[in-house]
Amino acid sequence: MIIHFSKDVPANLLEKYCDDNFARSFVDLNYIVVVTGSKIREVTDNLKKFVLEQFEFDSDLQLGSLDYRSKIGIQLTSVEINNLNTVLCYGPCSVESRDQIMKVAEKISELGLTTIRGGCYKPRTSPYSFAGLEKEGLELLSEVRSKYGLKVITEVRDVSHVTEVIESADIVQIGTKAMYNWDLLSACGEARKPVLLKRGFGSTLQEFVQAAEFILVKGNSDVILCERGIRTFEDKTRFTLDLGGVAFLKRHTNLPVFVDPSHGMGHSYGVPDLARAAAAMGVEGILIEVHPNPELALSDAAQQIDLVGLESLTNRLKKVCSAVDRQVI
Amino acid sequence: MIIHFSKDVPANLLEKYCDDNFARSFVDLNYIVVVTGSKIREVTDNLKKFVLEQFEFDSDLQLGSLDYRSKIGIQLTSVEINNLNTVLCYGPCSVESRDQIMKVAEKISELGLTTIRGGCYKPRTSPYSFAGLEKEGLELLSEVRSKYGLKVITEVRDVSHVTEVIESADIVQIGTKAMYNWDLLSACGEARKPVLLKRGFGSTLQEFVQAAEFILVKGNSDVILCERGIRTFEDKTRFTLDLGGVAFLKRHTNLPVFVDPSHGMGHSYGVPDLARAAAAMGVEGILIEVHPNPELALSDAAQQIDLVGLESLTNRLKKVCSAVDRQVI
Amino acid sequence: MIIHFSKDVPANLLEKYCDDNFARSFVDLNYIVVVTGSKIREVTDNLKKFVLEQFEFDSDLQLGSLDYRSKIGIQLTSVEINNLNTVLCYGPCSVESRDQIMKVAEKISELGLTTIRGGCYKPRTSPYSFAGLEKEGLELLSEVRSKYGLKVITEVRDVSHVTEVIESADIVQIGTKAMYNWDLLSACGEARKPVLLKRGFGSTLQEFVQAAEFILVKGNSDVILCERGIRTFEDKTRFTLDLGGVAFLKRHTNLPVFVDPSHGMGHSYGVPDLARAAAAMGVEGILIEVHPNPELALSDAAQQIDLVGLESLTNRLKKVCSAVDRQVI
Amino acid sequence: MIIHFSKDVPANLLEKYCDDNFARSFVDLNYIVVVTGSKIREVTDNLKKFVLEQFEFDSDLQLGSLDYRSKIGIQLTSVEINNLNTVLCYGPCSVESRDQIMKVAEKISELGLTTIRGGCYKPRTSPYSFAGLEKEGLELLSEVRSKYGLKVITEVRDVSHVTEVIESADIVQIGTKAMYNWDLLSACGEARKPVLLKRGFGSTLQEFVQAAEFILVKGNSDVILCERGIRTFEDKTRFTLDLGGVAFLKRHTNLPVFVDPSHGMGHSYGVPDLARAAAAMGVEGILIEVHPNPELALSDAAQQIDLVGLESLTNRLKKVCSAVDRQVI
Repeated sequence: MIIHFSKDVPANLLEKYCDDNFARSFVDLNYIVVVTGSKIREVTDNLKKFVLEQFEFDSDLQLGSLDYRSKIGIQLTSVEINNLNTVLCYGPCSVESRDQIMKVAEKISELGLTTIRGGCYKPRTSPYSFAGLEKEGLELLSEVRSKYGLKVITEVRDVSHVTEVIESADIVQIGTKAMYNWDLLSACGEARKPVLLKRGFGSTLQEFVQAAEFILVKGNSDVILCERGIRTFEDKTRFTLDLGGVAFLKRHTNLPVFVDPSHGMGHSYGVPDLARAAAAMGVEGILIEVHPNPELALSDAAQQIDLVGLESLTNRLKKVCSAVDRQVI
Repeated sequence: MIIHFSKDVPANLLEKYCDDNFARSFVDLNYIVVVTGSKIREVTDNLKKFVLEQFEFDSDLQLGSLDYRSKIGIQLTSVEINNLNTVLCYGPCSVESRDQIMKVAEKISELGLTTIRGGCYKPRTSPYSFAGLEKEGLELLSEVRSKYGLKVITEVRDVSHVTEVIESADIVQIGTKAMYNWDLLSACGEARKPVLLKRGFGSTLQEFVQAAEFILVKGNSDVILCERGIRTFEDKTRFTLDLGGVAFLKRHTNLPVFVDPSHGMGHSYGVPDLARAAAAMGVEGILIEVHPNPELALSDAAQQIDLVGLESLTNRLKKVCSAVDRQVI
Repeated sequence: MIIHFSKDVPANLLEKYCDDNFARSFVDLNYIVVVTGSKIREVTDNLKKFVLEQFEFDSDLQLGSLDYRSKIGIQLTSVEINNLNTVLCYGPCSVESRDQIMKVAEKISELGLTTIRGGCYKPRTSPYSFAGLEKEGLELLSEVRSKYGLKVITEVRDVSHVTEVIESADIVQIGTKAMYNWDLLSACGEARKPVLLKRGFGSTLQEFVQAAEFILVKGNSDVILCERGIRTFEDKTRFTLDLGGVAFLKRHTNLPVFVDPSHGMGHSYGVPDLARAAAAMGVEGILIEVHPNPELALSDAAQQIDLVGLESLTNRLKKVCSAVDRQVI
Repeated sequence: MIIHFSKDVPANLLEKYCDDNFARSFVDLNYIVVVTGSKIREVTDNLKKFVLEQFEFDSDLQLGSLDYRSKIGIQLTSVEINNLNTVLCYGPCSVESRDQIMKVAEKISELGLTTIRGGCYKPRTSPYSFAGLEKEGLELLSEVRSKYGLKVITEVRDVSHVTEVIESADIVQIGTKAMYNWDLLSACGEARKPVLLKRGFGSTLQEFVQAAEFILVKGNSDVILCERGIRTFEDKTRFTLDLGGVAFLKRHTNLPVFVDPSHGMGHSYGVPDLARAAAAMGVEGILIEVHPNPELALSDAAQQIDLVGLESLTNRLKKVCSAVDRQVI
């Protein structure tokens, strides 16, 4: 249950109520927002007169629910992420060198697009692999932003470097393996930056939207949900991109939805197919891994597409987006 | 390995070779086609001089492989299923009454489309459910064909009624639960009718394309592969539509690919989203469950869309198909 | 709902009731058993006076439910499958030759066991593989029965050879890929032989127990449920043996439960581990693939264990079964 | 590749080698251990003379591999975890009150067992649920240790409280949702306490053993691997306990293996079944959730068993363990 309390509610009463009910709260412009588990439907008598509005839900998808508020855009200085646009977010899996990231940035700029993505702190499944350029990578991304005026999406792996990443990024990405990292979700909730939250590959849609609640309940409403493939028995593709899940998210949440076809597919040949599929569904953004020289990539070599392929893909995506009344940005 | 033998190959030698190698064969226009497991790479010496051509493969995707022959269309009297078209196949889960099926047929006809689908022998997971109108349903579909000139797709459940269905249908559908039914695959291989083979919901892509081989090796090359969702841990959707799998099938097989978003989603609200996604991928056909009155449907009530929704969906699909250079038929 | 009707119920009224409600029926010793879907809870007025007893259920697990009747044994001439015994069913994946099957039978006999298993009609995922010795294999199994007095379990692939298999077997096995084959389930239901039904590897437990209902509702109550592994994302094992599912089946059904650790594991090294696990759960039987020379096996070579390993495994299984108050037979 | 270097290897050369090859290292008693990715098979020339021993592997299961060293026990003052024992670890999901935890501890003590488990920092999937007693809980566990002499297993959720938990616990548990949390794995690697690492429910066995490498490569070799169920399509059980995976871990790793049947099953009725299965496989430990009053539990109410059930379960587990030559501790 979400409750909007008038700001003159006595702090000690509210705190007790929250403690007793495992509820969380944050201060909004005009009221205090308190959220309890969805099974709780009653405010205690001593608080009733301070209640401005009250919303009940069937599950703990609450602040992010379309039944709570309608979809609103996310403003990034010049760009707005909303239901008229599809943001194409291209960039390498890992930032590897100035030359590499600048070539990609230049191409993105030529194509008239606004955003670049690239990882600096890579969460790996083996400790014996390349783990990103870390701070050096963040600096290269800052250069890219200055030189080409692109918005930067980059990933935070764990809390050890969350401050640096939040400072350097226009959109902070929480990766699939960190979706349950409560510390990290809270730190991103407290920052006043948009957060792109990737679905855990072993997570249900319900758990995914509940992970967003950990951010939202800190008062940060700029959360983007990103579907990137789940784990199934099929082994011809790296993961199984769950576009039925995207339909669910569009129907039930008030948050922008992005799709990452690169990780779902795991093979560059199918990425354009799945990117067009996502575009036709009408999503707010698509993340695609791009490398000037994919076979030399230090991570995810098989799934990155090259700069030539990128141009024809972009032209086709423009047509598909247009068929569903959206504009590519 | 596929071998094309000259027709003067001695029958007894060929038979022995097939027996020794668990190989299968059929007679084509200009040669005899023999297929062994992919690990066998040698013809016995006494047969070598009769070999016209020989093809090797990495797996038992052979007759259906794009490395064997390029994609060819399937001709259905007036309609051709090929890479310039997307066949929209609408119709109820089950044929339930003359009134029901005629209303749907009329709408399809109004929309300028060519094909109708509807089940008469329903494979159910409980013996205590409606199992289809059986012969009476087939007769209603024949009426529809006469009256509206539509092509008919209908499903065969098992071998007990395979002859009747093959006679009544323009395209015979083998459902997801029958994908491993060797008898049924063989019977459909021997018939000279196009076969729409649905992927088993617990089957890998490799098993799916190998199931098609059971039909192809009987000499029937008109096989359509239909992705309809696989079973995963996600429970907000009925199955998980595997569009990454569709990308794989397009890339590796020479067979037309259809998509069934209705069963994958299981909820009518997401069917248009997934249908647009499939269309944007560039597939040869899309199967959508339609009912004049979904809430009264005797099977799959939650996922069927009504005739009003159908019209706006069709208009949107025309635009999306056009964006990928295909025409809706 | 299961209804026991007195035998003097008018046939025409009963038939109409069954037609109207998609109900199935069979004649038992003292009454007529009618089963409707579980949502139907009412008999029509004109039939009420013929009702002897009525049972309601939450799902279509009905005839097989522990809420309908308690567990009863299955009698096989000298052997009884019941809750005091665990039947160890050893034998090759495929019967390949007289020498092979006789060696295995001799060892089983030496170990004091009662049962042998071996496939003659193999359901394969590629048409280009060994598909079993068929009739010749059945004859070899008959020889084994005569010579060693062992009970024979062998598999039926599809309806084309169901009569021969039913005649030759003491227990007819329906394999994992045939679990949804309605024709086959019905044919086995009509036969008066025990049926071992394997769970489809893509099937839920609910669908599994409902598949048994297709057999039970033909009046054949001798159905054994066999867990053999489901398909998951894990690829170090061939399937994932679902022993939690076995706990469910023991708790909710009135049917004997067998476990097949060989297919679940897919590697011989883990088969003894999983066999002991199954034994400790207290199941009525365990199926293990055994070959005198596993590396030469024509199917499932990796998972069969040899005759030496079999002896030490059997000794250990005796101890584990004894720890849960069961005797190995 | 694992390389044991003599301690007189020049630090600057070693550091460069590690940087160039994404290698990790730690100092052992008699040598320096360096680990590279498994694809690297060569030491640079300038380092060759300092190599004492070198081990190659097929994958990044290296320090934990049975090909590197044989299984060794973990010493906990009076108790040793090894292949002659099975540690029964009982306790509540969450420590909720002094009364609750003391009742459980008393029963464990009565049964002659040595270890208790209980969570204080609970990782939840919704922010609006009970999240544990935190420090207060740790203090209660310390009381239990003093009073009953039991070893304490408790969970760390994220790095914010890792120091407190490490100090209070005899074995630190990393939960299923934290398996990819690099920070946390490293912090536990640096601590000199045994670590119980639970498998991520969406993680492959390969990823699971690689997660252990993050701890091992910090020089902490006391890592216990705990299977607790993976996510599959089956919904009658909470997860699917992967005992085939346990067979794999026993065969390929040098680390003790524990099994948690409570989370795999999710229903108390099946926990004894799966506990016996695990015991019969011959594992080093079994974790079972126990509550004096399960229906009042603040988390995981459905799967906890009561103190009466615990006694009969323990007696049966003693017999099963004895059948596989292990002793319950």
